Amino acid sequence: MISDTQTLLERRAKLLGPNVSTFYEEPVHLVKGEGVWLWDAQGRRYLDCYNNVPHVGHCHARVVEAIAAQAATLNTHTRYLHEGILDYVEALTDTFAAPLDTAILTCTGSEANDIALRMAQAVTGEMGVIATDHTYHGNTMAVSQLSRTNPPPGGYWDHMAFVAAPDSYRPLGGDDGMAHAQAFANAVQEQIDALAARGHGLSCLIICPYFANEGFPTLEEGWLAPAIDAVRKAGGIVIADEVQPGFGRLGTHFWGHQKAVITPDVVTLGKPMANGHPVGGVVTSPEIMAAFRTSFRYFNTFGGNPVSAAAALATLRVVQEEGLMENAREVGEYARDGLRDLAGRHECIGDVRGSGLFFGAEMVLDRDSKAPATAFTKRVANEMRQEGVLLNFLGIHYNALKIRPPMPFSRENADQLLTTLGRVLSRVPLEP
Amino acid sequence: MISDTQTLLERRAKLLGPNVSTFYEEPVHLVKGEGVWLWDAQGRRYLDCYNNVPHVGHCHARVVEAIAAQAATLNTHTRYLHEGILDYVEALTDTFAAPLDTAILTCTGSEANDIALRMAQAVTGEMGVIATDHTYHGNTMAVSQLSRTNPPPGGYWDHMAFVAAPDSYRPLGGDDGMAHAQAFANAVQEQIDALAARGHGLSCLIICPYFANEGFPTLEEGWLAPAIDAVRKAGGIVIADEVQPGFGRLGTHFWGHQKAVITPDVVTLGKPMANGHPVGGVVTSPEIMAAFRTSFRYFNTFGGNPVSAAAALATLRVVQEEGLMENAREVGEYARDGLRDLAGRHECIGDVRGSGLFFGAEMVLDRDSKAPATAFTKRVANEMRQEGVLLNFLGIHYNALKIRPPMPFSRENADQLLTTLGRVLSRVPLEP
Repeated sequence: MISDTQTLLERRAKLLGPNVSTFYEEPVHLVKGEGVWLWDAQGRRYLDCYNNVPHVGHCHARVVEAIAAQAATLNTHTRYLHEGILDYVEALTDTFAAPLDTAILTCTGSEANDIALRMAQAVTGEMGVIATDHTYHGNTMAVSQLSRTNPPPGGYWDHMAFVAAPDSYRPLGGDDGMAHAQAFANAVQEQIDALAARGHGLSCLIICPYFANEGFPTLEEGWLAPAIDAVRKAGGIVIADEVQPGFGRLGTHFWGHQKAVITPDVVTLGKPMANGHPVGGVVTSPEIMAAFRTSFRYFNTFGGNPVSAAAALATLRVVQEEGLMENAREVGEYARDGLRDLAGRHECIGDVRGSGLFFGAEMVLDRDSKAPATAFTKRVANEMRQEGVLLNFLGIHYNALKIRPPMPFSRENADQLLTTLGRVLSRVPLEP
Repeated sequence: MISDTQTLLERRAKLLGPNVSTFYEEPVHLVKGEGVWLWDAQGRRYLDCYNNVPHVGHCHARVVEAIAAQAATLNTHTRYLHEGILDYVEALTDTFAAPLDTAILTCTGSEANDIALRMAQAVTGEMGVIATDHTYHGNTMAVSQLSRTNPPPGGYWDHMAFVAAPDSYRPLGGDDGMAHAQAFANAVQEQIDALAARGHGLSCLIICPYFANEGFPTLEEGWLAPAIDAVRKAGGIVIADEVQPGFGRLGTHFWGHQKAVITPDVVTLGKPMANGHPVGGVVTSPEIMAAFRTSFRYFNTFGGNPVSAAAALATLRVVQEEGLMENAREVGEYARDGLRDLAGRHECIGDVRGSGLFFGAEMVLDRDSKAPATAFTKRVANEMRQEGVLLNFLGIHYNALKIRPPMPFSRENADQLLTTLGRVLSRVPLEP
């Protein structure tokens, strides 16, 4: 018997408690996934244009086989020796430039960011943290302090500081990209000074190098350099949260920080790392790793276990051997061209942007005022779901369609997305 | 080619950094596991008397099949509806008395304790935390504050407080169990007062109800009641960390708090929950869950995903259907009888204690002085490893052999453990 939506929602409320978030006004009850496709309990098929966790495609056979084979052979922890974690960390760090040569494996991106903050403490001896003000880095008590969209009850720790996230569509400092960059660097410097005035030295700036939750603004190469310079001059380190842009998703580079042409001191990883198996990680230099390992005892029972390492290695090999980064670039460009065509027919599309298979369109009430069409965007996402295409919306004003499909997404899939979106945009009235 | 130990240790140091802990002077390079057995790269078989993560046995076919089947079908997150998490939480909460009827699933016990601390904040509106001073509850920045054995660099938060862990072999207040209990309750009250003097109301007492890391002292039924009363009188709640004693391990009860005859407000779960698949959880009342869910937005990408839920449900069903709790009681009693026999021949065994398949013996230099034989105990654990039996040591003085095997451990396995231990105790000189 297949439970209906209302029954499932009632069971959730009873067993999981209130306020457990779901996507869409009518949540989707999924039962099966394969490649870029998902199926609901009624057998209806959806094109997945949103989920980055199944990075190499839902239920990719090679990853499933790696998990099944290792789970049947041995699953234990890193207090025994095992080659799996070593083979994976070697393969993983090969994708980074020196000195990012060492790693800790965790189970979640939250755990990774929780460690990264302590690495910054360990290596700088300071506590001050600067983050952008529309970000999300995870759910531990410490990492929740980085979220401005969900302020922690009890308030922020005194050593937390925030700067406005960049907005390339409405840039501070005007349309000159480097003026915008300097305005961001100035804001970082102001917070360094404010932390110092409160008695806190700077430990780190933590950013998503693609500013994914802030609406993935289009930023010129070198845009981050002035801010990074200010951080380093103040003795802080730079943490790049690659949970969203990493593993080739941006098409042009394997990592978001490589696209942004910055060299972070610590990189954190999560969601797509093992195609849905709970794996996260922190990559850093031997020097910072040693500072952390000397200051903090750290052991994670499940982190880097043989099954997790096998799942992660299979995922990485599929990305590399199936050319998924190249596919992301090629199909992403094709899809953005299609979105720009749609923009020629739909005034609501104010800006088309993105890189590889992480892109979208900012919806506005009026192209001159750039007033965000927030309610409209939400309606569009819900209508798309009804039409069998799963995507979502985010950004500072929650008016950017967020398209971030599994990496085997094809031109044909892009055509379906664009055709459906055109139909929905023609139908949904543009209202505030 | 099979890497030798030295090569693996060098690769670990290079790829994972310094101070990554291993068990034993000569670490074990494992390649295969089945039931209570582990094999190293040279094909040598070890009897696993230590690992609680593979709760129902290494690579249990039913759990492996559940993981493989669900990983091949669908793995996504809780923002879509799925029955897997609901079926599991229903089965899980069925093992608890009301009102412990709701749960959050996480990926690790650390994440579970990190949430539990926030539940206590949310429901009490206070911050003060009391823990025992030889415990370990996990590795996040917040949860690391609970560890006295590994003090956090930068010091403890002002709202953390600690009480001495109980030691039934050297009880405060003398051999009268209830005097010992009252001494513990008095220590808790002193810390409640000390927190108040520093301006902090009490949010919670967090304990392992079996005091597993403190050396699993033998405590009378009702022993914890005076301390719990003091906590509740001060407005705090009680968090029971069941990561080690839970899921039937103690033989007599499914949960450690049931054996201790206390009703915690929040229970945290981890290691054995899905037989090694990264799953943890928090079980609480609808009231506390609602307070947490209202105060904190919480979403965990991997937490409660269909594969994790399938692995956890299969593990729980195996415990229940294979009678593993009953086996733990029966074999645990048999093994403790054997340890007491050994104590008749070996003066070094000062105390034999434990419950179900979590037991051990405290090693002393002299039964009158009860001086801990710490170096000797370490040597015994290493010699046991050389003899093909894996166990470890812990406790306040690190002189308690810790025996905590996979739950299908048999009388025959216990015989091998006892015979080997007898041989090692006869051979290793008792030196401080």
